[in-house]
Amino acid sequence: MISQLLGVPPGPVSLSDLDPSGTPGFDGGKSEGKQALADLAEPLSDLQERLFAAGRAGDDERRVLLVLQGMDTSGKGGVMRHAVGLFDPQGVRIKAFKAPTEEERAHDFLWRIERELPEAGTIGIFDRSHYEDVLIGRVRGLADEDEIERRYAAINDFEQRVVDGGTTVVKCMLHISAGEQQARLLERLDNPEKHWKYNPGDVDERALWHDYQRAYEIALERCNTEAAPWHVVPADRKWYRNWAVATLLHETLAGFDLGWPAADFDVETERKRLLALEV
Amino acid sequence: MISQLLGVPPGPVSLSDLDPSGTPGFDGGKSEGKQALADLAEPLSDLQERLFAAGRAGDDERRVLLVLQGMDTSGKGGVMRHAVGLFDPQGVRIKAFKAPTEEERAHDFLWRIERELPEAGTIGIFDRSHYEDVLIGRVRGLADEDEIERRYAAINDFEQRVVDGGTTVVKCMLHISAGEQQARLLERLDNPEKHWKYNPGDVDERALWHDYQRAYEIALERCNTEAAPWHVVPADRKWYRNWAVATLLHETLAGFDLGWPAADFDVETERKRLLALEV
Repeated sequence: MISQLLGVPPGPVSLSDLDPSGTPGFDGGKSEGKQALADLAEPLSDLQERLFAAGRAGDDERRVLLVLQGMDTSGKGGVMRHAVGLFDPQGVRIKAFKAPTEEERAHDFLWRIERELPEAGTIGIFDRSHYEDVLIGRVRGLADEDEIERRYAAINDFEQRVVDGGTTVVKCMLHISAGEQQARLLERLDNPEKHWKYNPGDVDERALWHDYQRAYEIALERCNTEAAPWHVVPADRKWYRNWAVATLLHETLAGFDLGWPAADFDVETERKRLLALEV
Repeated sequence: MISQLLGVPPGPVSLSDLDPSGTPGFDGGKSEGKQALADLAEPLSDLQERLFAAGRAGDDERRVLLVLQGMDTSGKGGVMRHAVGLFDPQGVRIKAFKAPTEEERAHDFLWRIERELPEAGTIGIFDRSHYEDVLIGRVRGLADEDEIERRYAAINDFEQRVVDGGTTVVKCMLHISAGEQQARLLERLDNPEKHWKYNPGDVDERALWHDYQRAYEIALERCNTEAAPWHVVPADRKWYRNWAVATLLHETLAGFDLGWPAADFDVETERKRLLALEV
């Protein structure tokens, strides 16, 4: 089970002990990894349609929420394009959380999150999330210490409620090395087609690398609950990262053991009505 | 140009003169059509990324809005899955319009539409749209005659404003035959995996087939503007329908002649800053 291999054990977390270039659970290299991802397209699409059908049928509250976190360049966008892109877009709800607006800042930090939760039968994807409020929030001192402390428990309560409502929460931290981040930022500078992805602020954030890693470790420890556990996905190899997240989603959906909703009408009656109707 | 082949000429429209099983602009059959669609994946993805980049860079207001209309089973969902599914889901905004809620009915019919318009750099998809208000609205008499009459001009004004704001509006009516609809509804009844897609109300709507065709003809005539022209996509062959809509989107995006945004920072300075930073 990939969820167990990448799951964060209870207790203190040390990111430096986790290899960002590892490929846990996968035997093979890049080309095999890309093929394995492509091979997931059909089963993922089938499971998603069953989930969607169950949600439409009315009394099945199940849904999935994938929470993606990671340092700049860790590949949240790549996961979206290559793994989430395997799903039928009709059943996917992607929300990218940016710096909060003035209106959002006037509310509790979870207010804007609540509004973007996926509905029954769908797969929600958060590109960044409420965790930013204990990551950049902590590193940049955007809230005072007491407030930051309060948030970990608030997140756990919130996620418990979301899970109780029928949502399976899959939290992934995309774990890259500082060296790989430098290489990816350089690539954005060296390739004019990628200039638009570069922001001088990225280097300012990179200067706080160790503070961010520490903030992640604290969040991974304190919000690693049974209801909504954390996974650390080694992300120096893009192909592995994409495969691992897609496989986590596949395991999650397969675990739902989804059938097809029964007809809430009489099939034979409808057949006759349809055939009797002259158009 | 597929947009010309499928574009509706000015003047009265007669849907019965348009072959729902035709394949205008495509030489070949099903397997070639599926391959041609697959071959569009890479160019579409590249063009979409350029559009997205332009939107992010700030001063390019361009975006696309695909409006999908068609009778039940005409394949709006299939287009979404197979054609829209070729794009990176991060740059796509899908909105399925259902029967309006009480809140929506308390507003002008365009109120809920306006709120779902795509932002610069993205591709919006409307699965049904404001046209329902002159289709089911007309057929089922959901508003009085004067109000229905008012709406055609209101739609034209609205779409003109949307276009003036930088949106290219691609309107497609998926055109199926009554026989094909019957076959598809039967398939939903005969295959238990498709029961969830069937609704007894579908037969009630089918009983009004000719009224709907007429309502479409009126809408296609009166809202076929230079700013936002209509296309009729023969939809009895699923592979052609998917290829045709993807090709319309490809033509649209290719016509934007999109480059990559220039850097708004000094590349050499950033390179030095990045390399000088020890992490």
